[in-house]
Amino acid sequence: MQKIKVGIVGFGNIGKQLKKRIETNDKFDLIAIFSRRKIEGCLPYENIEDYKNKIDIMFLCVGSQTDLEQVAFSLAKNFNTIDCYDNHNRLKQYVEKRAEIAKQNHKVCLCALGWDPGIFSLMRAMFGSLSVNYHTFWGKGLSQGHTQAVKRIKNVKDALQFTLPNKKALKMVEHGEELANNVKLHKRLCYVVCEVQFEQQIKQQIRNMPDYFVGYETTVKFVSQQQLDELKSFAHKGVVVAPNKEMKFELNLNSNPEFTARVLLAFAPAAMYLYKQQNYGAYTILDLPLSLVIDKEKFHYI
Amino acid sequence: MQKIKVGIVGFGNIGKQLKKRIETNDKFDLIAIFSRRKIEGCLPYENIEDYKNKIDIMFLCVGSQTDLEQVAFSLAKNFNTIDCYDNHNRLKQYVEKRAEIAKQNHKVCLCALGWDPGIFSLMRAMFGSLSVNYHTFWGKGLSQGHTQAVKRIKNVKDALQFTLPNKKALKMVEHGEELANNVKLHKRLCYVVCEVQFEQQIKQQIRNMPDYFVGYETTVKFVSQQQLDELKSFAHKGVVVAPNKEMKFELNLNSNPEFTARVLLAFAPAAMYLYKQQNYGAYTILDLPLSLVIDKEKFHYI
Repeated sequence: MQKIKVGIVGFGNIGKQLKKRIETNDKFDLIAIFSRRKIEGCLPYENIEDYKNKIDIMFLCVGSQTDLEQVAFSLAKNFNTIDCYDNHNRLKQYVEKRAEIAKQNHKVCLCALGWDPGIFSLMRAMFGSLSVNYHTFWGKGLSQGHTQAVKRIKNVKDALQFTLPNKKALKMVEHGEELANNVKLHKRLCYVVCEVQFEQQIKQQIRNMPDYFVGYETTVKFVSQQQLDELKSFAHKGVVVAPNKEMKFELNLNSNPEFTARVLLAFAPAAMYLYKQQNYGAYTILDLPLSLVIDKEKFHYI
Repeated sequence: MQKIKVGIVGFGNIGKQLKKRIETNDKFDLIAIFSRRKIEGCLPYENIEDYKNKIDIMFLCVGSQTDLEQVAFSLAKNFNTIDCYDNHNRLKQYVEKRAEIAKQNHKVCLCALGWDPGIFSLMRAMFGSLSVNYHTFWGKGLSQGHTQAVKRIKNVKDALQFTLPNKKALKMVEHGEELANNVKLHKRLCYVVCEVQFEQQIKQQIRNMPDYFVGYETTVKFVSQQQLDELKSFAHKGVVVAPNKEMKFELNLNSNPEFTARVLLAFAPAAMYLYKQQNYGAYTILDLPLSLVIDKEKFHYI
């Protein structure tokens, strides 16, 4: 069987995990890793188009979602891609635009594959189609977006934001009790490194930040840089749950980026299949039957 | 929007639940229910072919799996069908034969939709494709097949067999401990109605029944018919779980047939879509993307 020739764009946490997994999987051949930064083992991003006929699938693993959009649109013409785009609000228009370019250029692109969006989307779709109400609880785990928001505050030297599930609300759902409309399903816990004289002001600024923190029970703790570094963790959790636990799905991850890399790689055979079938376009996990993903030699699923 | 015209074959527990759900869902029009038995509100099964151009989708809800195979193959030429065939061992050949007939006769058939096979198959496929080991635990719940097996024993007047999860084994998996090869994941609990003088012999016969009970921790209790009737329950549970609960999916059902009916009905729009697209053939849940199933007006899933 011919190996799938793959490339990686971006060599952050997810890119590194993906490299590890590809190198120990004999179905794939890792042709190149591209980065804008000068990193040993990575090729300069400027040269990526030279590889347009040498790579079957390009994994997009650049850090921020803004960068990912830019990279995705600029590579869309020349590569089949798989990404873990995770801006829920902009996802619909992102997929539509990707679909248009993919169809024009005879490419396949799989969008928003990770655990949420991704595996959790699959759960919500399934719960919903069976007329089961559900709630999604995330955490405890680091939130990239909220951490960045805190870091942007003046005089903040460094920060981390952990999202915590509202355990009381989760228990209520599991026991079939109805939640009041205004109940927040999550709490927010910020660790901030700053000079002592800025602490009170920063705390106020965090708690008054619209969209991110207003309305949430938010705890702000001030720590040293060393303490902050020790708090860093890739672990994450989440649950999609229906009243009375009629259906419940939970994830308990040691490493969020490691799991995301696993999801990205798992769907590569689906991208390859769709490309060979000339089913060009953009797909989310809801568009992909799992028969395209399972290893039929190893497992007997039904 | 045009309603989907549906029919039901078989008016047992699942058929009754399906009727209820269809009648309160304005996307469907219930044309007829067919039964071999004389039941008020059901048409005779012999007349079913008269309806071949009047029904878009026929739900196959006959009781035993042997009956279901017969009904399925005899209706395959004239109807699009959805069934909850659940003989795991024979499923592959069942689907292949259904696919052949469906393609020849320009029909769509969705096979083995329920919770297992069905929803749990989807979970196992997902866990497996992410290189996650998993175990399936069923129960506590009534097992139809095992109950029938006990009832076939001479001098048994009536019986029920409950499948129970091996809770110790489940805890071990959840804590990341490895299970020995010979560990049975389930225990079996039988309630039997018989004359006192047959009790010891029946207990021996149950415990020595190959495939069904040999090797399992099996408890046999003797009860009166009235006690047995009170023990009857449609409740069922199950879990697909990975070591350390990296991923875990659980179902806690008040009514097994009610949930199965919900799954059958949820996939009807997928059958209709495939038929209109002339994608004739047989499909299991692994072949069906959830985008064909979700109600796009109501939910925003990603």
